Amino acid sequence: MDIAILGYGVVGSGVAEVIRKNSQSIATRAGEPIRVKKILDIRDFPGSPDSGLFTKDPDEIFGDPDIKVVAETIGGTRAAQEFTRMAFAAGKHVVTSNKELVAAHGPELLKMASESGVSYLFEASVGGGIPIIRPLSQCLAANIINGITGILNGTTNYILTRMRRDGMDFDEALKGAQLNGYAEADPTADVEGHDACRKIAILSSIAYNEFVDSERIHTEGISRISLADMQYAEYMDSVIKLIGVSRKEDGRIFARVTPAIISKDHPLANVEDVFNAIVVSGDAIGDAMFYGRGAGKLPTASAVVADIIDIAKHNECNSSVWERKHGDNMVPFGDSESAFFIRASVRHKAEAEKYISGVFENVEYIRPENMNNDTELAFRTPKMTEAEFADCIGRLKGIASVKEIVNVVRILE
Amino acid sequence: MDIAILGYGVVGSGVAEVIRKNSQSIATRAGEPIRVKKILDIRDFPGSPDSGLFTKDPDEIFGDPDIKVVAETIGGTRAAQEFTRMAFAAGKHVVTSNKELVAAHGPELLKMASESGVSYLFEASVGGGIPIIRPLSQCLAANIINGITGILNGTTNYILTRMRRDGMDFDEALKGAQLNGYAEADPTADVEGHDACRKIAILSSIAYNEFVDSERIHTEGISRISLADMQYAEYMDSVIKLIGVSRKEDGRIFARVTPAIISKDHPLANVEDVFNAIVVSGDAIGDAMFYGRGAGKLPTASAVVADIIDIAKHNECNSSVWERKHGDNMVPFGDSESAFFIRASVRHKAEAEKYISGVFENVEYIRPENMNNDTELAFRTPKMTEAEFADCIGRLKGIASVKEIVNVVRILE
Repeated sequence: MDIAILGYGVVGSGVAEVIRKNSQSIATRAGEPIRVKKILDIRDFPGSPDSGLFTKDPDEIFGDPDIKVVAETIGGTRAAQEFTRMAFAAGKHVVTSNKELVAAHGPELLKMASESGVSYLFEASVGGGIPIIRPLSQCLAANIINGITGILNGTTNYILTRMRRDGMDFDEALKGAQLNGYAEADPTADVEGHDACRKIAILSSIAYNEFVDSERIHTEGISRISLADMQYAEYMDSVIKLIGVSRKEDGRIFARVTPAIISKDHPLANVEDVFNAIVVSGDAIGDAMFYGRGAGKLPTASAVVADIIDIAKHNECNSSVWERKHGDNMVPFGDSESAFFIRASVRHKAEAEKYISGVFENVEYIRPENMNNDTELAFRTPKMTEAEFADCIGRLKGIASVKEIVNVVRILE
Repeated sequence: MDIAILGYGVVGSGVAEVIRKNSQSIATRAGEPIRVKKILDIRDFPGSPDSGLFTKDPDEIFGDPDIKVVAETIGGTRAAQEFTRMAFAAGKHVVTSNKELVAAHGPELLKMASESGVSYLFEASVGGGIPIIRPLSQCLAANIINGITGILNGTTNYILTRMRRDGMDFDEALKGAQLNGYAEADPTADVEGHDACRKIAILSSIAYNEFVDSERIHTEGISRISLADMQYAEYMDSVIKLIGVSRKEDGRIFARVTPAIISKDHPLANVEDVFNAIVVSGDAIGDAMFYGRGAGKLPTASAVVADIIDIAKHNECNSSVWERKHGDNMVPFGDSESAFFIRASVRHKAEAEKYISGVFENVEYIRPENMNNDTELAFRTPKMTEAEFADCIGRLKGIASVKEIVNVVRILE
């Protein structure tokens, strides 16, 4: 079976490498040899092991009836979308690692693929090489999926791990991540949670069988997390992770991405460095967790190639088209519930405590012996809605003995 | 699509329950409704929700052209094998949770299925509800699999967890497991490692694309593990788990099941109670871990139903037939390497130490302050082959100052 690769960046060149390196075992698994016939890229790659395959002309790919599958590893939503549509129109299957495109235009692209009688597969879009899309849509198909909770971004998990283990502050840990190639020069998409948001949107769309729009998911990044927050978490026998979560609640979908305090007993608490892990809760299976390298050239490329093998083996097609619902399928942010961890700098400690206990019912103060608590109160609230919480915070700010809300971190139950 | 269930025990009745309960979402995923048409069992089940479906006559199933798939949930290798062959002969796909049958007769049954143009699927045979067979054979298909390491038996993991956490000895923890329904009245298959052995044999056969015979895998259970062993492990910042492991080494397969000391940093160290987890190492993906409930009615049933859905969706067929090799594909036990943890009761401590250091090069003594070490020496050896180790142990036994080898536990690297 002949394929083409669009975009010879990190993932695209990895796809060529995996196919070259493991050609024999791939042929066994696929039932026929897989050959890269063409690679589209506007750049030149002199000395590349794939040098005979490059073209700058898309027609050489879309007009070639031998090419059955196109691997879109361009990224972004512009050229990638255009080429994906051209591939479908030409009757070619598309496999991709492009979470941005799937999260933004999944419903339309899945519909077009279905109408064109081809597949649009994206195992590599979430969790890098970790098998998660196919287990979710196939292996757990007998389950009603109730919820998904995951560490979905390797960059932020690396930064949080360095902060906790090595006592670096956020800026220092981010620099380290950039030096090690784990964070880009502009780290916004990772650090502010947008990447994790796209991934939880894709997983949720599969799990609940309807489109979950990433634009409608409340998303916060980790740039406000400090070493002091981590010390408090440690005292609570917990760690802080960037968590993407979604649940089906009374027919509506609750989803969000935020830093969260999670107990060290939680299976996600031990997921360190650039590793990702996703816990899926089903009505029959209970909790299952999938863990591995969430990014990187070869892990991601191997997931792209697995999709190609699936198409070779049995014309694998998508099990469903995602319907775009208009505004009524999400739990409004204000209605979603959490317990909260709050740090407030205070003027008069005893007085502030009295007022805080009046505003929140049942707070539990966190008082690590080794932290200077003369001007700061830290406490956890009972579970409440975001709307109730915003109201309480508003009232705290009006209290003279409370100087400032230093930080707020949600607590994962 | 009509199916039949053979054997209405824990898993069989679970299959009927999952199909009844989640019929709508299963129909969506499968592309058509799945209906249980007949259930074969020699027993009567008055008042069962499936009461209209029972038959004691296999011909009512194998002679019914409407029935496309048979779920074999009988267990064991006698009737189960006979019925599986009858199903293939009648042109019916078979899905099963029967690890004993797959491990013992997988090559013959896969061959017969292939010749009959039907599938033999067994996702539920390993890891209960955890998706592992399909991820291994499909999602990781672009990888050369180098190794598998897993906690594959929930009963023994529950017992070891109770021992470590609650200070119970083995017998007490086993009784607790039986009371909770986690261990059978005759716990031999679980406790002595046979169940885990069958599972590592099945996973290895898939991973390395050739039959790995469970009879040829060195297997030890956990009945010799004591609380003292666990205390030493704790002092080594480790825990003791029953570990199934296999690797491809120079074209041959190394596999074994033994209790092992593993560092608390290892992802398997935190797998507690009846949970199972499997780490798969691939050349592209690195390490990926799959974690969840390794047994239980509904988790296992949901894996059986996932295989049924796959057959409905695209006539899923096995990717390969396992070839039975004769004797030459396994690393001989004597050649396989480990580091070892050894406890010896001694007569003269200083003298024994001198001799031990002479027998093993480079031993490291383990001396927890809180354990009475007057008559016992505990130490870890460097990595050596089993043959070298047996030789060293033989020499230790000849030393007058060494009274007895109390226990030996391998150390997982």
